Amino acid sequence: MKVDVFFTPAGVNPADVQGRSVAVLDVLRATTTIAVALHNGAKAVLPAGSTEEALRIAQNLERDDVLLAGERRSVRIPGFALGNSPLEFGPEAVQGKTIVLTTTNGTPALIAAHGAREVIVGAAVNFAATVQRCRAALEQHGDLVVLCAGRERQFALEDAFAAGRVVKVLLPQGGLRRVEVNDGALACLELARHYGERWLRAFKASAHGRSLAELGFRADLEVCAAENTYPVLPLYADRRITAHRAPIEG
Amino acid sequence: MKVDVFFTPAGVNPADVQGRSVAVLDVLRATTTIAVALHNGAKAVLPAGSTEEALRIAQNLERDDVLLAGERRSVRIPGFALGNSPLEFGPEAVQGKTIVLTTTNGTPALIAAHGAREVIVGAAVNFAATVQRCRAALEQHGDLVVLCAGRERQFALEDAFAAGRVVKVLLPQGGLRRVEVNDGALACLELARHYGERWLRAFKASAHGRSLAELGFRADLEVCAAENTYPVLPLYADRRITAHRAPIEG
Repeated sequence: MKVDVFFTPAGVNPADVQGRSVAVLDVLRATTTIAVALHNGAKAVLPAGSTEEALRIAQNLERDDVLLAGERRSVRIPGFALGNSPLEFGPEAVQGKTIVLTTTNGTPALIAAHGAREVIVGAAVNFAATVQRCRAALEQHGDLVVLCAGRERQFALEDAFAAGRVVKVLLPQGGLRRVEVNDGALACLELARHYGERWLRAFKASAHGRSLAELGFRADLEVCAAENTYPVLPLYADRRITAHRAPIEG
Repeated sequence: MKVDVFFTPAGVNPADVQGRSVAVLDVLRATTTIAVALHNGAKAVLPAGSTEEALRIAQNLERDDVLLAGERRSVRIPGFALGNSPLEFGPEAVQGKTIVLTTTNGTPALIAAHGAREVIVGAAVNFAATVQRCRAALEQHGDLVVLCAGRERQFALEDAFAAGRVVKVLLPQGGLRRVEVNDGALACLELARHYGERWLRAFKASAHGRSLAELGFRADLEVCAAENTYPVLPLYADRRITAHRAPIEG
């Protein structure tokens, strides 16, 4: 059995994800926002690599059913209906909608997972569902990749801590002896040991969390840090992220 | 004051290093080998980005004074005088020589530091000299970059731990309150807390260390893990790495 953690999509090769189960984490904020949107009744979230691609995808959908969403430098893209704050994705906004989403770090990470057997969209808000599906992948197929979005191609504390939480829950005491782990997995376990279950503390320590707070998104940190508040399993396949609430089968 | 740690050159932008002091760490094995070579009397080490570039550089030097050195997949490049094991760089081999060195991870990291105010070549074997120069940079210019070579564009535990050792010694208790640090610095401090001064333990836990042991380079791990055994300060400037043994001035 094998668990690999990558801290950014930069440096990840197609062979690192090909045919494997990949959990993508961008807890501040894209993967949180995706879980919130789907839990609140959005039909699907379609990641787009650029503003232009988002517009192109939206043009091919029914106008009444589609919402453009996304950020650059953490703030809503001008003209888009929604930004990237989970607080904007309430049921009244997203029920029945298809959301085309483009973000600085989250969507590139999802795109880097191309070729995976399955892509799990993980966050604190759907932590138990994420871990359950990761465990199923590990037990049935013998391996798992945890792919952190990071921040502008660099290491981000909040995602690395989240990866550490996933690995720590998957591999309790002694688990490391049975499972081959890469250096990233070993390192993020130390972050999980340090912060424990204190998501908010890790977020507040991270550069991204501090930047979001300064930009007025302090409330987002608390939403993103609340474990299991949106218990949904978003899976990314065929360019669409959709919710899986049913009992999970491998 | 500001300390940034980057775990690989991938994702590092020219602006991240421009005009700053940068300590490059590739403790298994390139920066160790460079320190050993210079301590043992090599005139200079010239990093080359490729085998072809190494040959080209060597052709422009006096034949008797130059040694080609380097590895691909950890083993000596065919036809080169030396590989990348510090054990090959004894005084009898390197005294008075100019060494043209190309390695998989170390030389790309050195090249990524292009544009820095100064580039310090750090390892366990010259740890005190490295930290002393880093402290001088921090005190005189207010900032420091620690750039890990990593392994094939990905996170490597041994370099991240080494970075953590540097940051921990530079910023003892309470130091984090006075100095702005990036997420990489916060994370590698946890590795320094976990492994303490046990370089060899960190090396043996790392994928690279385990791979080197399997390839027959187990003795290299011990050489690379021995703190302050080659007390030299290699600085990289004008495409040459040379030794600075004299009392260090900023």
